[in-house]
Amino acid sequence: MDDFEVACKGLGHALNIREKYMRLALQRFPQTTSQYLREIDGEKWNPEDLVQPVFTSPPKQGEDPFNTKSLASDAGYVARMRDGVIYVYKDAADADKHKPLNLPAPDYTTFIDDMNFLIALIAQGPTKTYSHRRLKFLMSKFNVHEMLNEMEEMKELKKNPHRDFYNCRKVDTHIHAAACMNQKHLLRFIKKSYRVDADRVVHNIKGKDITLKDLFASLNLHPYDLTVDSLDVHAGRQTFQRFDKFNAKYNPVGASELRDLYLKTENHIGGEYFATIIKEVASDLEDAKYQYAEPRLSIYGCNPSEWTKLSSWFNKNRVFSPNLKWMIQVPRIYDIFRARDFVPHFGKMLENIFMPIFQATIDPQSNPELSIFLQHVTGFDSVDDESKHSGHMFSTKSPKPNKWDIVKNPSYTYYIYYMYANIAMLNQLRKERGMNTFLFRPHCGEAGAITHLLACFMTADNISHGLNLKKSPVLQYLYFLTQIPIAMSPLSNNSLFLEYNKNPLLEFHKKGLVVSLSTDDPMQFHYTKEPLMEEYAIAAQVFKLSTCDMCEISRNSVIQSGLSHEEKVHFLGTNYLKEGPEGNDIRKTNVAQIRMAYRYETLCYELDLIKQGVKGD
Amino acid sequence: MDDFEVACKGLGHALNIREKYMRLALQRFPQTTSQYLREIDGEKWNPEDLVQPVFTSPPKQGEDPFNTKSLASDAGYVARMRDGVIYVYKDAADADKHKPLNLPAPDYTTFIDDMNFLIALIAQGPTKTYSHRRLKFLMSKFNVHEMLNEMEEMKELKKNPHRDFYNCRKVDTHIHAAACMNQKHLLRFIKKSYRVDADRVVHNIKGKDITLKDLFASLNLHPYDLTVDSLDVHAGRQTFQRFDKFNAKYNPVGASELRDLYLKTENHIGGEYFATIIKEVASDLEDAKYQYAEPRLSIYGCNPSEWTKLSSWFNKNRVFSPNLKWMIQVPRIYDIFRARDFVPHFGKMLENIFMPIFQATIDPQSNPELSIFLQHVTGFDSVDDESKHSGHMFSTKSPKPNKWDIVKNPSYTYYIYYMYANIAMLNQLRKERGMNTFLFRPHCGEAGAITHLLACFMTADNISHGLNLKKSPVLQYLYFLTQIPIAMSPLSNNSLFLEYNKNPLLEFHKKGLVVSLSTDDPMQFHYTKEPLMEEYAIAAQVFKLSTCDMCEISRNSVIQSGLSHEEKVHFLGTNYLKEGPEGNDIRKTNVAQIRMAYRYETLCYELDLIKQGVKGD
Repeated sequence: MDDFEVACKGLGHALNIREKYMRLALQRFPQTTSQYLREIDGEKWNPEDLVQPVFTSPPKQGEDPFNTKSLASDAGYVARMRDGVIYVYKDAADADKHKPLNLPAPDYTTFIDDMNFLIALIAQGPTKTYSHRRLKFLMSKFNVHEMLNEMEEMKELKKNPHRDFYNCRKVDTHIHAAACMNQKHLLRFIKKSYRVDADRVVHNIKGKDITLKDLFASLNLHPYDLTVDSLDVHAGRQTFQRFDKFNAKYNPVGASELRDLYLKTENHIGGEYFATIIKEVASDLEDAKYQYAEPRLSIYGCNPSEWTKLSSWFNKNRVFSPNLKWMIQVPRIYDIFRARDFVPHFGKMLENIFMPIFQATIDPQSNPELSIFLQHVTGFDSVDDESKHSGHMFSTKSPKPNKWDIVKNPSYTYYIYYMYANIAMLNQLRKERGMNTFLFRPHCGEAGAITHLLACFMTADNISHGLNLKKSPVLQYLYFLTQIPIAMSPLSNNSLFLEYNKNPLLEFHKKGLVVSLSTDDPMQFHYTKEPLMEEYAIAAQVFKLSTCDMCEISRNSVIQSGLSHEEKVHFLGTNYLKEGPEGNDIRKTNVAQIRMAYRYETLCYELDLIKQGVKGD
Repeated sequence: MDDFEVACKGLGHALNIREKYMRLALQRFPQTTSQYLREIDGEKWNPEDLVQPVFTSPPKQGEDPFNTKSLASDAGYVARMRDGVIYVYKDAADADKHKPLNLPAPDYTTFIDDMNFLIALIAQGPTKTYSHRRLKFLMSKFNVHEMLNEMEEMKELKKNPHRDFYNCRKVDTHIHAAACMNQKHLLRFIKKSYRVDADRVVHNIKGKDITLKDLFASLNLHPYDLTVDSLDVHAGRQTFQRFDKFNAKYNPVGASELRDLYLKTENHIGGEYFATIIKEVASDLEDAKYQYAEPRLSIYGCNPSEWTKLSSWFNKNRVFSPNLKWMIQVPRIYDIFRARDFVPHFGKMLENIFMPIFQATIDPQSNPELSIFLQHVTGFDSVDDESKHSGHMFSTKSPKPNKWDIVKNPSYTYYIYYMYANIAMLNQLRKERGMNTFLFRPHCGEAGAITHLLACFMTADNISHGLNLKKSPVLQYLYFLTQIPIAMSPLSNNSLFLEYNKNPLLEFHKKGLVVSLSTDDPMQFHYTKEPLMEEYAIAAQVFKLSTCDMCEISRNSVIQSGLSHEEKVHFLGTNYLKEGPEGNDIRKTNVAQIRMAYRYETLCYELDLIKQGVKGD
């Protein structure tokens, strides 16, 4: 075999691996790539193989999104965790015999094999050279495209009536709920709450009621004097390369009491302030009309009651907005919980995270508030500082979750695998039950080892950050070939990991990776009242993006997001599921057909090369 | 003499030159520098030598800014232009004998001598080396200051109650009225005007009335379909290094008819739309409360009636806002007017520009609308593409303005000198009459020869852009020593002349030059609803500015601006005219005293070195 053939065979196999795991978890895989893979295998492509996640449609006029009446009845199934993965059984007897329902589970050994194959592939000389050359070619090709067609693209957009960058839909694909307001907004909110609620009991220490007034008095400050400087939640030069310092910025005035009161769902006032702030942010988005956001709320896995509390907060405060799609973030901090003896082993943490959802899926009426909340959840995120090295390597020899009882944190890949496996099982169950499914959308490649990006290539529908794709040509090329959406936040990176003008966003975009723009934490990074617009404006200025670029990125954000099929049809056009120019409705997206054709032809050309390589033509 | 002495003597003399011309025109010169100059000369510094411009105070509660009742009576003077400069005489008899009032005029020959001295100085080896070394030192010194004191500065700001970056005053020191709204705002305005006014007659061609409907029909477009893309007023990649293409962007949809209708003060509807848009921008600023702007309106000098028309527009439409301070911009396009035979010679253009103001100053009642308008004008700007080379060199041999009748445009310096000379005469007259005075604040150093920066060192109170100070260490050092404010617009530069991350703003700021941030043309460059905040946000992100940096830049902008003494006292504190930490009220400015002390000591140290050099110590 010559180098070309070696590289193409390896890449082709890698694509097959991703396709398999996407299908298993009801996540997306591009149709174009899939068709080429079938051609390579000499099989017929079946449009029915196309898997699509299911998201809850927005409530119809007059419909109450909190109405529990239409919840499904009890399926009577039994869910049990086995080696860190939850299986569903017809009944307890089947469960005892481990005869699960016919919901295909990922196979642990195969997964490790596949992973090891990919680890070898991304280090393999011929594949590295080939990927590097193709990426270089993709870059030059886009530059040529730009020089030749920029004016033509612009002409198309100018002729496109009524639609421009301002009124094409954009989704903030990566934002943490606890930092979704900007610093000025939080400051105003705190001041207002004090004006209105000074005598309200907001805390209770050892049986003693603490009013808002007492609380501020104990911190030795008066909200009138509070400024964004003393609030001190903005990331400054001090946070660069210091994720620990950055995390501390979540505490207003450095006081965790204020974080608890204003930015948490669980506290003495039932998370009322936090709900109100979020609803204010949502109301601003509704006013702006064309902006959506996907805020993340935390589930830690310390306790199985977390879900009940969180969904109770969601329902009681009626935290719903058509412009918000919810995500659940799970911090990778087992080591902290284990050290404090909150959990006996890693398996328990996984069980705390996933078992309540399985149960609510099996019998929605058993926890109606959670069932309602889950209808509005569109995916899972995995979060924490990726630059922390774990020292553990995921392999067949790794202890199973229920045996992982040491204080040491397992590796990123270990976390990712078990989250993925449970989400896969859960999605199959929910699909069977006619419910919405979840996407796995972890933070990945913000820092740390490139194996993170490899794990997510196998498991994630799409990722946040992806900066480290810079460091692996093979993975970068694979992310291109499989069109994995990447929510990038260059302003966040600028404060934490990478200076703005070194951000690879422009490079990725030019090469044809599917990038979107997101804010991550407006509280810490942004200055203006419209953080998402600030993010776009700065990218447009520093990277000199054209209108077509910006509208393409906006379109990517809608595709990447958990907006429902109905909404996507409304925002992108009826054919949005089709790939290439056919799937684009310029009247809705303001993306030039010339650009769409360029992207499509470019992808096909690269896939075709691989086909030739594999077939040895 | 050794090199050090040579350099210091040259620099000392240069400082004296600027001080002389500033005083003559009632413009500002820093007290600290002035005191050192007196010490060098062995003279006593007299605080009464301190010259301050006079700006109209904001109207008191219930006072009408358009009230003409309190206008001064006729002084009976006669004004006449002589060699391009307007002199004022007691009466016609004195005018005939050229016996002007005792208002000191700049001497043409001395000015040329001074200029030639400076031209030699900025090319002189020892002075270049010395300035370069001092600037390098200033840079390193600031870096050390930052490393040592950053946390201390932040601590001061955190302790400062109620004041933060958001509520310290900032002035958009450089903005063109015709582009002061953002593209989206203009678009919305056009659409709204069509909904309300479709049948209104907005134009008249050869006796035929044209309605708004007709106008858009003739352009073959319907405002409903209009988008920011088809509006096409935003600077894109196409405008980089193409000032001509940039200027064409002032025409919405490329149609000068729409520019005339929406962005001009003179048209069939008396500039009503333009006035309304500006008042909307002003109302946004008033709502934001802490933001001010200094929009420029054009006077071309084609016709002496321009002033009457412009002031009539201002009064009729009541275009007044406490958050706007007006400036007059004079484009340097004599060549175009001469080619079309609009003016017989350059002198006539100068007369058209300045004579009406002299007349309104002598007898305000003769043109009450102009007299009122002039109360709200705070300065003059000189505008056009600086990169156009004129081929002319200003010298004693240059033809006098009334002899300059060729089609060729005179040089930048020639324009600047005659504008300066007339403003100097005018300010003296207005001061004598108890009226507000004007600052000369030209565009300078955006492109073109460094002699532009030299001319403005002699004549301008402060400048816009100043990018080319990068190219001349001597001038850069002189701008530092004389603390000449520079309104910088890195977003504008990014689209026209210099990529964002190459902008010298950060470097200048670190070295201690007095920089402010301004938007130039929000219509062409900005994306969000708050262009000035966008400008600050991007600078903060790309340059990683600290809060103290941002507040210092905001403070600079207030100082640079034409805000009245009363307003400056209110925004900066009672002692704002004092230099150094004494002049700073942290409660109002949120600038750390540590920073102020650093700046003051640094300036004094440099001036002291020059003193030592000159005295040969």
